[in-house]
Amino acid sequence: MKMLINSPETVVADALRGMAAAHPELSVDVANRVIARRDAPVAGKVALVSGGGSGHEPLHGGFVGPGMLDAACPGEVFTSPVPDQMVRAASAVDSGAGVLFVVKNYTGDVLNFEMAAELAEDEGIQAVSVLVDDDVAVTDSTFTAGRRGTGATLFVEKIAGAAAEEGAPLERVAALARQVNEASRSFGVALGAVTTPAKGGPTFDLPAGELELGIGIHGEPGRERREMMTAAQIAEVAVDAVLADLGAAGDPVLLLVNGMGATPLLELYGFGGEVARVLAERRVTVARTLVGNYVTSLDMAGCSVTLCRADEELLRLWDAPVRTAGLRWGC
Amino acid sequence: MKMLINSPETVVADALRGMAAAHPELSVDVANRVIARRDAPVAGKVALVSGGGSGHEPLHGGFVGPGMLDAACPGEVFTSPVPDQMVRAASAVDSGAGVLFVVKNYTGDVLNFEMAAELAEDEGIQAVSVLVDDDVAVTDSTFTAGRRGTGATLFVEKIAGAAAEEGAPLERVAALARQVNEASRSFGVALGAVTTPAKGGPTFDLPAGELELGIGIHGEPGRERREMMTAAQIAEVAVDAVLADLGAAGDPVLLLVNGMGATPLLELYGFGGEVARVLAERRVTVARTLVGNYVTSLDMAGCSVTLCRADEELLRLWDAPVRTAGLRWGC
Repeated sequence: MKMLINSPETVVADALRGMAAAHPELSVDVANRVIARRDAPVAGKVALVSGGGSGHEPLHGGFVGPGMLDAACPGEVFTSPVPDQMVRAASAVDSGAGVLFVVKNYTGDVLNFEMAAELAEDEGIQAVSVLVDDDVAVTDSTFTAGRRGTGATLFVEKIAGAAAEEGAPLERVAALARQVNEASRSFGVALGAVTTPAKGGPTFDLPAGELELGIGIHGEPGRERREMMTAAQIAEVAVDAVLADLGAAGDPVLLLVNGMGATPLLELYGFGGEVARVLAERRVTVARTLVGNYVTSLDMAGCSVTLCRADEELLRLWDAPVRTAGLRWGC
Repeated sequence: MKMLINSPETVVADALRGMAAAHPELSVDVANRVIARRDAPVAGKVALVSGGGSGHEPLHGGFVGPGMLDAACPGEVFTSPVPDQMVRAASAVDSGAGVLFVVKNYTGDVLNFEMAAELAEDEGIQAVSVLVDDDVAVTDSTFTAGRRGTGATLFVEKIAGAAAEEGAPLERVAALARQVNEASRSFGVALGAVTTPAKGGPTFDLPAGELELGIGIHGEPGRERREMMTAAQIAEVAVDAVLADLGAAGDPVLLLVNGMGATPLLELYGFGGEVARVLAERRVTVARTLVGNYVTSLDMAGCSVTLCRADEELLRLWDAPVRTAGLRWGC
């Protein structure tokens, strides 16, 4: 498998150098692997820090900026960052108002962020963690006890980030982040396997003519393999899996139609139209829609659907200005 | 090859339905295949209309909105839209101040936009066409007499769109579009072939361990096949091909590090870092950098580099607010 890289060992450092060159508004510490807002710490503001294995870009580094994250810690590909990295990020962006760690539910991330929170407290930084575990496909998985954290991470980081930008205190920002996670569910589908630089080939085998329903963002097994389906059929399976868990009634939803990385935007929009159709048939009102590659899995072909039930306040915070490399509006 | 589609015949219509669902700020005519600003025609404003074969998303439909295009006409995958479509788009968005057609240099597009300009004039719409032909890889190609139009299309649409938004007259908007095209050069590289829905498999054969230098955005042949290279080496070839034609001295450049569709953002940023390094070594000053999948070729793996020499005025227009699905800042 060919890749646009120098070597598997330098992939993350090379990408960070590229981010530094492209985004003068970010402060990129290549050696210590921290991407931060250049204007951090922002006086009086709660800081949001996230991180995880690389390979899901623009998540998380592409979500650093006003209205979203203050810093991100990228690990090696599909590998948790280390506690030192997280503490360094927290120290760099904490204004004294405290830090919220946004943690996707994978065992390595959870353990390392726990340790980081303790170390941060030792340094006098108030740190609170919020776990994202929105993926309804499976409970427990290759790298996870409980549900995996996937697309809802974007909703959590955006909405909690908006609240922090407005000056909400740590307790309130954390409560909002938990509310968003609890109101969100995701389901993913793979049409083609993912290739990691270290392996140099597909990390799992997906035969021609089959897809995997319920795939994880590291290629972890989902619910089942099936013969290839149409976009309309996939949309029905994904939406119904999400609604079976979220419930069909409630507030209007934020909808993320997410590409896994290698699926063309043309196909993703076609799929998004089918998702919108199914949601209308299920009498779910969509308040906002985002279509694109946001929580990816390197070169995996496929997609995921995330819904978040949003009351007036969540909707207002979703619409609030955001200025990052990967998500940008209103400013 | 598996695709997230309903059928090859409905790919474009399905995608348009998805765009309509996701973007209430756009007016999407699925039957006639026109994507327009919902607030068009904007009184007194020159309208920008572009279009071309589908499969290059977000180009062009994703660039419709304030500060960029007023309308886009998507053709079938890798197939020119028809003149009727273009005239319909022009009629929908013309305020009386005239229409600029932005045309990528492919034979079908050129002929059809020429006919559309004549038909539009018959309807009393003043229409001027500007040709984009920035790809230095080859002169004449599978679908092209002269150079192909690729990444510079984004610069032309953004900068001319900003001038139109400010109220510049048609003559000035067209002159700026030509200036941007003349100041821009591109070079693309494929690591993997592109799959079209109609064919259902790769449209060309790229052996394991080889890449194609100078690839076109429809998979048209480039300059040569070579054994796989590092990102650093590819950056040198691409930048030097561009500079050999553009000249090494002059204004600072706008830099587009563009993904062809299936190359992960992590790799694209790493490549972007190498492009920045080579430009610095060649003493070229980079004023602005954009990294991402903007002028794509469905699921092709690979990248392209576009440079545009930008004087103060072009830079100001580049920085001006834009609000589209694919490009958004400042508003």
